[in-house]
Amino acid sequence: MVRTAKPVSYEIRIRDDLFGLDRTDLFDAGATTDGRARRFIVIDADVDLLHGERIRKYLDHHHAEYEIYVVPANETVKDFDTAARIVRKIDEFGIDRRREPVIVIGGGVLMDIVGLVGSLYRRGTPFVRVPTTLIGLVDAGVGAKTGVNFNGHKNRLGTYFPADLTLLDRAFLATLDRRHIGNGLAEILKIALIKDARLFDLLEQYGPVLLDEKFQGLTERGNLVAQEVLRRAIHGMLEELQPNLWEAKLERTVDYGHTFSPTVEMRALPELLHGEAVCVDMALTTMIGWRRGLVSADDRDRVLAVMRGLELPSWDPLLAQPALLTAALEDTVRHRNGQQRLPLPHGIGDAVFVNDVTAEELLLAVKDLSELGSTRSGAHV
Amino acid sequence: MVRTAKPVSYEIRIRDDLFGLDRTDLFDAGATTDGRARRFIVIDADVDLLHGERIRKYLDHHHAEYEIYVVPANETVKDFDTAARIVRKIDEFGIDRRREPVIVIGGGVLMDIVGLVGSLYRRGTPFVRVPTTLIGLVDAGVGAKTGVNFNGHKNRLGTYFPADLTLLDRAFLATLDRRHIGNGLAEILKIALIKDARLFDLLEQYGPVLLDEKFQGLTERGNLVAQEVLRRAIHGMLEELQPNLWEAKLERTVDYGHTFSPTVEMRALPELLHGEAVCVDMALTTMIGWRRGLVSADDRDRVLAVMRGLELPSWDPLLAQPALLTAALEDTVRHRNGQQRLPLPHGIGDAVFVNDVTAEELLLAVKDLSELGSTRSGAHV
Repeated sequence: MVRTAKPVSYEIRIRDDLFGLDRTDLFDAGATTDGRARRFIVIDADVDLLHGERIRKYLDHHHAEYEIYVVPANETVKDFDTAARIVRKIDEFGIDRRREPVIVIGGGVLMDIVGLVGSLYRRGTPFVRVPTTLIGLVDAGVGAKTGVNFNGHKNRLGTYFPADLTLLDRAFLATLDRRHIGNGLAEILKIALIKDARLFDLLEQYGPVLLDEKFQGLTERGNLVAQEVLRRAIHGMLEELQPNLWEAKLERTVDYGHTFSPTVEMRALPELLHGEAVCVDMALTTMIGWRRGLVSADDRDRVLAVMRGLELPSWDPLLAQPALLTAALEDTVRHRNGQQRLPLPHGIGDAVFVNDVTAEELLLAVKDLSELGSTRSGAHV
Repeated sequence: MVRTAKPVSYEIRIRDDLFGLDRTDLFDAGATTDGRARRFIVIDADVDLLHGERIRKYLDHHHAEYEIYVVPANETVKDFDTAARIVRKIDEFGIDRRREPVIVIGGGVLMDIVGLVGSLYRRGTPFVRVPTTLIGLVDAGVGAKTGVNFNGHKNRLGTYFPADLTLLDRAFLATLDRRHIGNGLAEILKIALIKDARLFDLLEQYGPVLLDEKFQGLTERGNLVAQEVLRRAIHGMLEELQPNLWEAKLERTVDYGHTFSPTVEMRALPELLHGEAVCVDMALTTMIGWRRGLVSADDRDRVLAVMRGLELPSWDPLLAQPALLTAALEDTVRHRNGQQRLPLPHGIGDAVFVNDVTAEELLLAVKDLSELGSTRSGAHV
């Protein structure tokens, strides 16, 4: 019997004005040769349109030898083919296995794909993440998961492979559309519900301000709130992830909202964004929690109201298909190694795990939710 | 900065008569439910033909609920498509994420593919290896590497993901053809050359016996030699791999014979088996070692003679293409993070690393080799 351990270290750095010409953060992981860095960069097409010129100016200023590969990324192209295309481009450019990290600039989908490429390329080449979406900043960019969808299943193929360096710059959110701000707020709401009542209060009070100001601090109050919300969300995620980076423990509070949503999201593609599917799942499981006496009627209504305030859907027509929900739960049980390990809200800011949710209970939750003034985001009605 | 470590443990067990009805080793990794094991099994088509009936009888005897997926495996189908087909089959069968390990019964190629599937499926599902070839027993089945070829490059995509349990039963070698015994002997010769002079002596003295008896112990002497050769080869590999399972250190003596061979093997496909390509590489680098005064003329000739005795090629027409060798070295340099880190033999049973092999030196080595009575295996002239 061989026993060993693979050492892993990674850094998450919050940095304003990341592409300011005097900044060198982007090159802090990996090596330079004669003062020049060779880097292969994968960038989301929208980000390239909005920020590409500034990024190229920055790279030129630092005398980097680089290639930028532009990928129009979204959930429907989160597949192995996209990963394979990136690998071919890396082969063409050529990188030294462990000192010329691949850089990804984009949202959660692109970070997940490039992370998978990094973990597979020559059995592992380092990578650097620059998330440009809110969900990227508070969720995908903070953890160690990589993955692509396969065979109709969300992230069916993936690895745990943290980026060597993740650089968080909220300035990117300024150019994000309102719906994608909401998409990230859904994952923030998740953290609030399972472990941070104060964060929930902030979302309740300032949801519309966060949507309006896009975390850019346009007003003094808005600035303070944006900073505290980001700090709490990222800190909360890290607190849950770090002791369990490889998910040795399958009871994970951060799986809240991720029991039914993987299947709902894949079936609804491209209709629902990830955070939106998670929000629908949270609305449904809030109903279960309420019927079980874990959540008061007041808190239940507050949760639904905050979802509305964040312009997030709490309902999707797919919920009306009992067979789909049962299949979703079955796949999640396999994913959680034979048990439901289903996180449910316990009041606001705490969670419990249950293993005995029944099909009848699910039907009732769907009925409750459909009657309780559930909403769909106007963005994709 | 987050610092952590992923704990890993795995077991390699030598077991005769693995599918004897009273054996339970195959189920020692993973769980049973009500005394029944659910297992998804991937088996090589040739192995299925030769041993499938006995294996099914064994599984039935143990009341296993199983599906056997038959894959005609060889280097030309060592690609992501084959891995993807296996994933689809696993999805169909359904397995609990961490307690129903995928079992692979086959050679190095199939173990590498299924290992990759295991490492990717739901971000990691355990697997059990039963190598059925000599190269599988002494090389692929002992390490932690998984992989598939991609974009014309050998194992361009892969992971480090050791099987939870590897079961070594030399009885499978009885049905292997002579050429595939030689294929495995090449990797054994590698271990001998870099670290085990006694193992080299055994190959020198008993090469033909090993080929004739296929490690089955048909004679008393043949049995003793087969056991010692297997023990030394496996022990030698483990000794080199274990302290460096993730290749944090890129100077690896076990990379001997793997500098030019990845490119040669891929270009020669399907002509050369892996071990044969490795042998050609070792013959070439023995010439370099000799010219550098690291290997005496006597030892050089002994090495070539042993290759002949094992019916392995020490020459391939591709060696006559200087551009191909230069390209191979360049890719290896990228793989070894910017330096050659090229292991060369130092006498017999020891190795050194060099970083300064030149194109001229390579040309000379090719010339030396072509003049020194190099041989090709009759199997694929």
